[in-house]
Amino acid sequence: MSLEQTIAHIGPLDEAAMAAARVRQDNLTKPRGSLGRLEALSIHVAGITGQTQPRITHKVIITMAGDHGVVAEGVNAYPQEVTAQMVYNFLRGGAGINVLARHVGARVVVVDMGVAATLQPHPELVIQKVALGTQNIARGAAMTRQQAIQSIEAGITVVEAEIARGLDIVGVGEMGIGNSTPAAAIVAAFTGRSAAEVVGRGSGVDDAGLARKISAVQRALAVNRPDPFDGLDVLAKLGGFEIGGMAGVMLGAAAHRRPVVVDGFISTAAAMIAVAIAPQVRSYLIAAHRSQEPGHQAMLTWLGLTPLMDLDMRLGEGTGAALGISLVEAACKILSEMATFAEAGVSDRQ
Amino acid sequence: MSLEQTIAHIGPLDEAAMAAARVRQDNLTKPRGSLGRLEALSIHVAGITGQTQPRITHKVIITMAGDHGVVAEGVNAYPQEVTAQMVYNFLRGGAGINVLARHVGARVVVVDMGVAATLQPHPELVIQKVALGTQNIARGAAMTRQQAIQSIEAGITVVEAEIARGLDIVGVGEMGIGNSTPAAAIVAAFTGRSAAEVVGRGSGVDDAGLARKISAVQRALAVNRPDPFDGLDVLAKLGGFEIGGMAGVMLGAAAHRRPVVVDGFISTAAAMIAVAIAPQVRSYLIAAHRSQEPGHQAMLTWLGLTPLMDLDMRLGEGTGAALGISLVEAACKILSEMATFAEAGVSDRQ
Repeated sequence: MSLEQTIAHIGPLDEAAMAAARVRQDNLTKPRGSLGRLEALSIHVAGITGQTQPRITHKVIITMAGDHGVVAEGVNAYPQEVTAQMVYNFLRGGAGINVLARHVGARVVVVDMGVAATLQPHPELVIQKVALGTQNIARGAAMTRQQAIQSIEAGITVVEAEIARGLDIVGVGEMGIGNSTPAAAIVAAFTGRSAAEVVGRGSGVDDAGLARKISAVQRALAVNRPDPFDGLDVLAKLGGFEIGGMAGVMLGAAAHRRPVVVDGFISTAAAMIAVAIAPQVRSYLIAAHRSQEPGHQAMLTWLGLTPLMDLDMRLGEGTGAALGISLVEAACKILSEMATFAEAGVSDRQ
Repeated sequence: MSLEQTIAHIGPLDEAAMAAARVRQDNLTKPRGSLGRLEALSIHVAGITGQTQPRITHKVIITMAGDHGVVAEGVNAYPQEVTAQMVYNFLRGGAGINVLARHVGARVVVVDMGVAATLQPHPELVIQKVALGTQNIARGAAMTRQQAIQSIEAGITVVEAEIARGLDIVGVGEMGIGNSTPAAAIVAAFTGRSAAEVVGRGSGVDDAGLARKISAVQRALAVNRPDPFDGLDVLAKLGGFEIGGMAGVMLGAAAHRRPVVVDGFISTAAAMIAVAIAPQVRSYLIAAHRSQEPGHQAMLTWLGLTPLMDLDMRLGEGTGAALGISLVEAACKILSEMATFAEAGVSDRQ
């Protein structure tokens, strides 16, 4: 679907399914509320899917890669070629996301959204390349508005293809050397926080790199003057192709009533873009974890999301989302597999 | 092994294995430290097991059941018969712990440590019954010192039998109507906190029940005067048979260098007993989650443990431990399955 059609298809949560799931939770053989957030998660997924006992069978992590012109400002600890090298690592199954996706039984879909190299063809590599990396946001817009739309619609296309293969839940992750800089610029643009508040060390820049990164975000905001009430404008001026792609995955999944598990700092920047474009997508998002990156909490607060875990992770790729998917699956199994008091012959409270 | 022999077998963590695991973590294709607590967990398990790349294949949850004389004080929302009814629910696979154990690929071992009913035989029910429930701690000791030792040695026997069947990690959980009262008394005894600070609503008592529960804990401490420097004394005066059994599982697992994942409020009370008896067992414990029960944080602080998750859970049974086991397994897979920079041909930092 086009972006416009997708937005039109994102409806509210199914209140009737949520009410039915709540009733069932309250009749399972445990004190009411004693499974805490697992109970709430299962009811949330009932509302997303419209199923009173949702089944999570097909789990998918979509990991999107892109490069960033802003690396010219010396904002990153690793050379740009690592983006492409890590894509090959994903395809060989040796990266963190591969290990954690296998652990939770999810398949990984690797997408080239805009890597600054022509990647070798691979049967499992999805090519949706918008360009060979973005422009340097410290000096101008990352991309044109048309490219922003293209990146989002690519994400919609990717998730719709996976839904056709079978997808009950999707985790969203990324790889892109330098992409914590656009993510920081995005959170600053939407929340009004200063660059110094939201810029962190990303993959591990030293103090001088951190200062260059803060300066790059300040210049990106000053040069581009993004409109925080226009999500496409923020994406075009500050974003990345993988950030647009992830926003598209979120919008497309929501349009098809599939829950989306958001990963860390960069993925949550994409969630901000998606919510700015279509606020009702927020109800379809589940925040997996709180990143070590300092700007992440400002994103979560703006989105009104409470992460499931806080494990000091900051890798990206969808690694936190993979662990989050397992918790959502556990929550749905509680709802569908536990015995009720009546079924088990257990006395309810006095 | 006897309790005495078990204590003598609990050694320090293997520093060489931990150092080797740290080196490997630092060479995996991710920024150093970017998997946060997963990295630390994998190194911890290396130290526990003495293996530089520990494998978690056989996962076991030991769920121990017992009854409590203190229910006569009106401290619980559910009738005492629920303990036995839930044991049957465990054996039929319909309880929360069954669902979550299946989700993470763990087997559940159900142990009757002291249910106040003679349970019907079942091929999967382990009988280590010390007595038909404890005495009322508000009026005297829960059990004799000899019964306290017996309950701990039963736990050692149970975990050693499971190690013989194959056990790479063990989660510890429980079922026992009324057992949040002895757990609150135990944390008060060890930390000196007041009953009002550490007593919570357990499975959901109302305000009047909460007041009776606080009073029962106050009387248990006044009547019994437990010695906080004598773990067996605290167990005998305030404990439960399942609490002693869980302490025994922890000590036995540590003696055989197996990691122990501690569940919630009651399991952590057992951890305090185990650590009071043999302080070196602490290094073998991993706290799965922070319970909603208000006294749990005081326990974790006293033990010096930081829980992996905070999901507002308060069910017990080992449900939090099951989810924790999955995170420990994920951490160990990261250590053994991820590619190194050299293997993957990925450039390290500049």
